[in-house]
Amino acid sequence: MITRMSTLFLRTLREDPADAEVPSHKLLVRAGYVRRVAPGIYSWLPLGLRVLRNVEEVVRQEMAAIGAQEIHLPALLPKEPYEATGRWTEYGPTMFRLNDRKGAEYALGPTHEELFALTVKGEYSSYKDYPVMLYQIQTKYRDEERPRAGILRGREFVMKDSYSFDLDDEGLAASYRLHRDAYVRIFDRVNLRYVIVQATSGAMGGSASEEFLAESETGEDTFVRSTSGDYAANVEAVATPVPAPLSIADKPAAQVHHTPGTPTIETLVAFLNAAELGRTFTAADTLKNVLVKIRKPGADEWELLAVAVPGDREVDMKRLEAAVEPAEVALLEEADFTANPFLVKGYIGPKALQDNGIRYLADPRIVAGTAWVTGADRDEHHVVDLVCGRDFAPDGTIEAAEVREGDTAPDGNGTLVAARGIEIGHIFQLGRKYSDAIGLDALGQDGKPKRITMGSYGVGVSRMIAAIAEQSHDELGLVWPREVAPADVHVVTAGKDDAVREGGERLAAELDRAGVRVLLDDRTASPGVKFADAELVGVPTILVVGKGLANGVVEIKDRRTGEREEIGVDKAVGHLTELVRR
Amino acid sequence: MITRMSTLFLRTLREDPADAEVPSHKLLVRAGYVRRVAPGIYSWLPLGLRVLRNVEEVVRQEMAAIGAQEIHLPALLPKEPYEATGRWTEYGPTMFRLNDRKGAEYALGPTHEELFALTVKGEYSSYKDYPVMLYQIQTKYRDEERPRAGILRGREFVMKDSYSFDLDDEGLAASYRLHRDAYVRIFDRVNLRYVIVQATSGAMGGSASEEFLAESETGEDTFVRSTSGDYAANVEAVATPVPAPLSIADKPAAQVHHTPGTPTIETLVAFLNAAELGRTFTAADTLKNVLVKIRKPGADEWELLAVAVPGDREVDMKRLEAAVEPAEVALLEEADFTANPFLVKGYIGPKALQDNGIRYLADPRIVAGTAWVTGADRDEHHVVDLVCGRDFAPDGTIEAAEVREGDTAPDGNGTLVAARGIEIGHIFQLGRKYSDAIGLDALGQDGKPKRITMGSYGVGVSRMIAAIAEQSHDELGLVWPREVAPADVHVVTAGKDDAVREGGERLAAELDRAGVRVLLDDRTASPGVKFADAELVGVPTILVVGKGLANGVVEIKDRRTGEREEIGVDKAVGHLTELVRR
Repeated sequence: MITRMSTLFLRTLREDPADAEVPSHKLLVRAGYVRRVAPGIYSWLPLGLRVLRNVEEVVRQEMAAIGAQEIHLPALLPKEPYEATGRWTEYGPTMFRLNDRKGAEYALGPTHEELFALTVKGEYSSYKDYPVMLYQIQTKYRDEERPRAGILRGREFVMKDSYSFDLDDEGLAASYRLHRDAYVRIFDRVNLRYVIVQATSGAMGGSASEEFLAESETGEDTFVRSTSGDYAANVEAVATPVPAPLSIADKPAAQVHHTPGTPTIETLVAFLNAAELGRTFTAADTLKNVLVKIRKPGADEWELLAVAVPGDREVDMKRLEAAVEPAEVALLEEADFTANPFLVKGYIGPKALQDNGIRYLADPRIVAGTAWVTGADRDEHHVVDLVCGRDFAPDGTIEAAEVREGDTAPDGNGTLVAARGIEIGHIFQLGRKYSDAIGLDALGQDGKPKRITMGSYGVGVSRMIAAIAEQSHDELGLVWPREVAPADVHVVTAGKDDAVREGGERLAAELDRAGVRVLLDDRTASPGVKFADAELVGVPTILVVGKGLANGVVEIKDRRTGEREEIGVDKAVGHLTELVRR
Repeated sequence: MITRMSTLFLRTLREDPADAEVPSHKLLVRAGYVRRVAPGIYSWLPLGLRVLRNVEEVVRQEMAAIGAQEIHLPALLPKEPYEATGRWTEYGPTMFRLNDRKGAEYALGPTHEELFALTVKGEYSSYKDYPVMLYQIQTKYRDEERPRAGILRGREFVMKDSYSFDLDDEGLAASYRLHRDAYVRIFDRVNLRYVIVQATSGAMGGSASEEFLAESETGEDTFVRSTSGDYAANVEAVATPVPAPLSIADKPAAQVHHTPGTPTIETLVAFLNAAELGRTFTAADTLKNVLVKIRKPGADEWELLAVAVPGDREVDMKRLEAAVEPAEVALLEEADFTANPFLVKGYIGPKALQDNGIRYLADPRIVAGTAWVTGADRDEHHVVDLVCGRDFAPDGTIEAAEVREGDTAPDGNGTLVAARGIEIGHIFQLGRKYSDAIGLDALGQDGKPKRITMGSYGVGVSRMIAAIAEQSHDELGLVWPREVAPADVHVVTAGKDDAVREGGERLAAELDRAGVRVLLDDRTASPGVKFADAELVGVPTILVVGKGLANGVVEIKDRRTGEREEIGVDKAVGHLTELVRR
């Protein structure tokens, strides 16, 4: 079917929308693909809906190719399954919640692990039924604290979520691999530049997890990659290389020093280096004890947590949050210091913390035999040569220190550099968290119940469109990859005489008959307006029917490269049909 | 692609689900098309999702054919537009409502008149832009008081809703007609038996409105049709034929009679006929004054309303509700009688009502010159020969009296008979209710703003599937019309030997290559189990590959008629391809 601009429900905008900061947001609104209805909530206009359907179709084909079966679960979900897994509480304010007329509690599904597990439990019972992979392409809801950038981070969005159900870990690994490969094919088909990074599992639970990040400076996700190119990870997932332990025997005894006016690392280092202790100190020789409080899901009480990091690094709150998830983290308030007088601000050391039963977790670099300058739990006093494993022993390690460019890559090959990306896919080996909560078993060949192990795999379908627009545009407008473009060819009639109009109509009709999806600009607008709209809308190939028609030629323009070529009008349809099918 | 029963996520059930009463609900669950998640909230399993997509595609094609353009609006909607039209209040508890993390109020869209009007207002400004018809196929939400019968009346369901925007009434009438014709084609294509009935506009507002009702004894909607076949209407929409006024001059004067022990019509008629008044009375000679109270949307106070109907008819609460919509109706409580001592139970007459300022609406049969026996506002007293237009004058008419089989049809042709149906489509000429509320104008050719007039048109997409299942099943299972069936041919291999299995595989592959959608029962189950499942699942054509294969024949069974025919294995694919394309 030919789509006619003269009647198409499309009005392009010359100005960027006031609330738009990133290119994809500006262009998708200006080109009439989406419209804002409320914060993070958008409508899809005709061209936008086509791109959305095209992306869905790519996803659907690749899911079918790995044998995943499509079903469709409700978005309005009862509370009970989410209570069974604890996520009713864990999700916090990010989950939209409501009551029905009888007062029963419901959520708008942010993700469907529980419901898919229950669905499989309802149908399958024997080991012979497994494995199975199920998916849906569905509107999902998350009450983001900061919806932003149009459809990039929305509160109502389209996601493909799939789930695998296997009898054993090898099965799960195979299902995970199938999904990983399918995602590579999906993102390759739509021409996205992306990296696959190691990730944390977060509220999902489970073990192995990787994220697909579309490379983009406007992305919200910071990740690091190694200069060798072998390693990439979410900042939250970077594992600090653990140094070998050092000998304790040769270390001098710990000594408390009066260190007046040294509540910060900077003042402390300056003081130490002025004190003529026979060596030079850097911030890396000091041990910073950062106090926070955490609260477990559903708990009323906060508990204190001390995090020890080398003094030359800050605590990265996002890494800390990921490390303690699903617990919440908060900074201490004045009242907390009042209630715990052993916390001497600026001079906190491990002794008072551990004497008072505060959980004390240390950066992995703080291994046995390392000696530190740290607080002595007395105002204006520090202790020097406090040795880990001799003078103090952390309760465990924690990945909370900031990751810096130049850090050694965890695999030892090269150093880390930072980059930004847009999360377009995320795959998880969940394991048995959900099947345990819901009691999803198969009767084994031996007659005994066997607990099912699950995987969960998401693609941000609507977000992919924003990511494609971020990566694929120029100053004139959008530039769609052919696979997802709202049309194959944008036919522009440039000129008002009947011959041009009729020529455009005839070529559009012939292309349509050849199975080419045509957007025909049959408006009475000026050629300048039409060309500008064609660049903005971003169909990959533009066919200009203008004055040359009198000499039997039309012009084909490649939207991406800007290259133009004249071609005989009788060859145009054949040439374009070839081009589209390539 | 061949769908294999050996891996298909499908487990049929032998027993009807405990909560199912109607055939469509029983069979769609038993055949593994849908599964219940919560009251009125269902999941679509693979075969169900295919039928849903097929129905959507039929709807989409017919919408495109009339030039309607598909867009997609959010389901999560801000409060403001619904407040502007008053529907935030009018919708009452049927609209799911929720607050976001910042406390802003949202609804889950039950229908989208406001948002479509705002969308058009956002893009269009000139008379040259119009007319336009837009639609979406979307998940909708209504918190029904009594969700029932599976997907027949759900709380989360799929609807096609379209909206027309025209410059004038003639344009609206044309858009309405286009939709009406498209709906006829949609319902014809899926083989539904249906009637188009006159309807009331209800909470939608507007003037002309018709409903498409699939004929079904299990339907919730009662309608009447005339014995002549020319008239059909929702009971709520039946207009009572108004008799010609009678002469007042020849009527005897009204007389109050002591009528002890006659609080009911029955006792009153018996008393009158025993009182030797010189004529015979029937219930139709009496006037029943029924008191209710109504409350306008958003109002705190109830107000009394008196409804007068001939004593041989009851007040039909659904007709009364439709007549006063969007106001609510309730019966009087004892406290209301105490607060209004002029209401003498069993003996209420028009005088006391009108003297006390109670709104008094009468059935259209109560025309000037009609004489009635009615309450005299004193205990155990009635007045005889109270003449309308002489002794009392109603404040207006109301369609609240029951409609009975045998009543004259409103068009005067034949009498009415009752039937039941399932509402599958509803079309409304809304007029300017929404464009007035939202200020949707086009700049006219004369430079003056012109208010747009709207139509609204809905198809219950998921409900259509229940309606099809209600009309198209037998005692063995479902019988899908070809256009919406989850597959074209169900290939059943009957027998365990390799030749049968391989024959089935080969025929399935050949059919697949010919573009026929194949469901292949490649399980190791017994032929009996396979045949029973094939009948239950309801694919229109069943190809049985069994013992006959050794003699070069297979069997083709028509699911609807049960007819079987043997056919040479070499002719089967050609024959089936023909059958499917027919």
